[in-house]
Amino acid sequence: MGGMKGNEEGKSSSSATGDFSKEKTIGSLFNESMINLDHGDPKVFEAYWVEMDAESSITITASQSLSYFSDITNLCWFLQPELANAIRSLHGVVGNAVAGDRYIVVGNGSSQVFQAALYALSSDSDEPINVVSAAPYYSSYPPMADLVKSRLYHWGGDANVFDDKDRPYIEVVCSPCNPDGSIRKQVINGPDGKLIYDLAYYWPQFTPITFQADHDIMMFTASKSTGHAGSRIGWAIVKEECIARKMTEFIELNTIGVSKEAQLRVAKILDFIYDGCRKSESDEPPQSNVFEYGHRILSERWKKLREVVDRTKVFNLAEYPSEHCNFFGKVTKSHPGNERYIMGNI
Amino acid sequence: MGGMKGNEEGKSSSSATGDFSKEKTIGSLFNESMINLDHGDPKVFEAYWVEMDAESSITITASQSLSYFSDITNLCWFLQPELANAIRSLHGVVGNAVAGDRYIVVGNGSSQVFQAALYALSSDSDEPINVVSAAPYYSSYPPMADLVKSRLYHWGGDANVFDDKDRPYIEVVCSPCNPDGSIRKQVINGPDGKLIYDLAYYWPQFTPITFQADHDIMMFTASKSTGHAGSRIGWAIVKEECIARKMTEFIELNTIGVSKEAQLRVAKILDFIYDGCRKSESDEPPQSNVFEYGHRILSERWKKLREVVDRTKVFNLAEYPSEHCNFFGKVTKSHPGNERYIMGNI
Repeated sequence: MGGMKGNEEGKSSSSATGDFSKEKTIGSLFNESMINLDHGDPKVFEAYWVEMDAESSITITASQSLSYFSDITNLCWFLQPELANAIRSLHGVVGNAVAGDRYIVVGNGSSQVFQAALYALSSDSDEPINVVSAAPYYSSYPPMADLVKSRLYHWGGDANVFDDKDRPYIEVVCSPCNPDGSIRKQVINGPDGKLIYDLAYYWPQFTPITFQADHDIMMFTASKSTGHAGSRIGWAIVKEECIARKMTEFIELNTIGVSKEAQLRVAKILDFIYDGCRKSESDEPPQSNVFEYGHRILSERWKKLREVVDRTKVFNLAEYPSEHCNFFGKVTKSHPGNERYIMGNI
Repeated sequence: MGGMKGNEEGKSSSSATGDFSKEKTIGSLFNESMINLDHGDPKVFEAYWVEMDAESSITITASQSLSYFSDITNLCWFLQPELANAIRSLHGVVGNAVAGDRYIVVGNGSSQVFQAALYALSSDSDEPINVVSAAPYYSSYPPMADLVKSRLYHWGGDANVFDDKDRPYIEVVCSPCNPDGSIRKQVINGPDGKLIYDLAYYWPQFTPITFQADHDIMMFTASKSTGHAGSRIGWAIVKEECIARKMTEFIELNTIGVSKEAQLRVAKILDFIYDGCRKSESDEPPQSNVFEYGHRILSERWKKLREVVDRTKVFNLAEYPSEHCNFFGKVTKSHPGNERYIMGNI
């Protein structure tokens, strides 16, 4: 929640995904008297997509996309060109990130993209590089960083209290932050620091788009931008060729690329959203796109959540700022999408 | 090739996948005067699937499979029930592996399944566990095992010369072997040895099915069984619950599961093959299935390759045995599918 500062270990106790294996217990406990905030399964957009099924479904034939390869002329040889184009176009029309002439690396969800970035930013020295993030942070960063106890990198804790700034480190900046929805900047300024920006929630349904992000490594995911978590499509926008190449190498060895079916389907979805945004911009009658729909439904859910929480007199929710959103062309309020109640299919 | 014994480091220099980043160079060099054996892109079955497109295509709507979860009642909660059923049915009718009451763990290709198995079989001791395989072995085993320099496990080399048998180790048994097509058994018999069976090529188009495999961990992949390498669907059949649980945990943290689109598509393909096999068994007119097609085309390609190689008087190819295949109900010959010439779309 907004006011949460993490527990004594500097670790967040709530996040949008978190421990998925808990789901079975949660499923059996969940009933109308509970608001389960353990993690979000982004089915909030399902009703929207049901309406759009006729226009944005995809058929994959048995003989299609048999090969490991998508585009052997591309550094990221397993990235479908349709998806690369759709990603660039959508970031262009939304204005949330510079993507036009950057490298795109696709992964099996932004979890894999994150691990690929850790691999790319670390070197084979005697000591693993510290990976840190300002608390409260996404609760899966530590177990992802320490998954196989790598000698290349390991979790280093809360960036706010990190005191080894003169050696190389990796700071993960998650903005808007999962779990607390705040807008974040880097908190360490060491000489050999490297940055990964996790911008999964930097889309107009969640927060005003106030500038076009242009960092060295920026991560996004279909799970949050469109609600297609089941597709496991994440991507990084990367400035430096050598970093994009090492990230590609990691994904090659980890999974030999990314499902073509998922890439083609997400490309279709992103193209559909792009077309909707372009129509909204033109003189044609504006068509509701997933960002408008998402902004409206998240707004309604936050309103209801605030009413319920206010009545308790025990809890309180953070107030989020209103700012001018370049995408909507007006002042909008942040509606963080990282709580289960907000994102779930309820 | 058949006679290859690996180089001085005990490492294979040829494999069915190998170093994918070489593809760009290879692409520009490849012409009719070359037989490129660097790695196989299994497009050999493409012509078959083009014929079957009308019957085995799949449509995925925009609102389908949005969730992270496939089946929260299953230990492997991200495994689509359709795929689990299709895998069990196909192994049943082919007779290549006991799968009925075993755990199924799905991964993003068998590469990820392999890494999940290493994670599940290792423990957090002072020394990483050795991962070994009899040379010549699949050239991607060493870089996959050493990808992020894990403290849990590391590559230990050729199982034939492994001399640390009294401590725990993991032996990977690849049968039929990639790269040499031979039928393999474990070569070490240490008291604390653990085994992973890579049975990617144990399908009737490649080798006679002589017994129903029933090992603790058996890996398979759509890339080889059906030719759908682009889908990145691999699976393990696992006897012990605790191992299946740890493998699931690895895949949860590495990629939060596996693309639903790819799972649904491969389920459709496996069901289609199963139906074809059942029709062949019944009194109905036999319908050519992908195993019959694959066996025929691999046989033709091996015949051509032998003619070319014989003419050189420089190289020679191993002879593979003929045995009774329980699936085809007759004596068939092995036609290893791990060379690029054999599996490529040429």
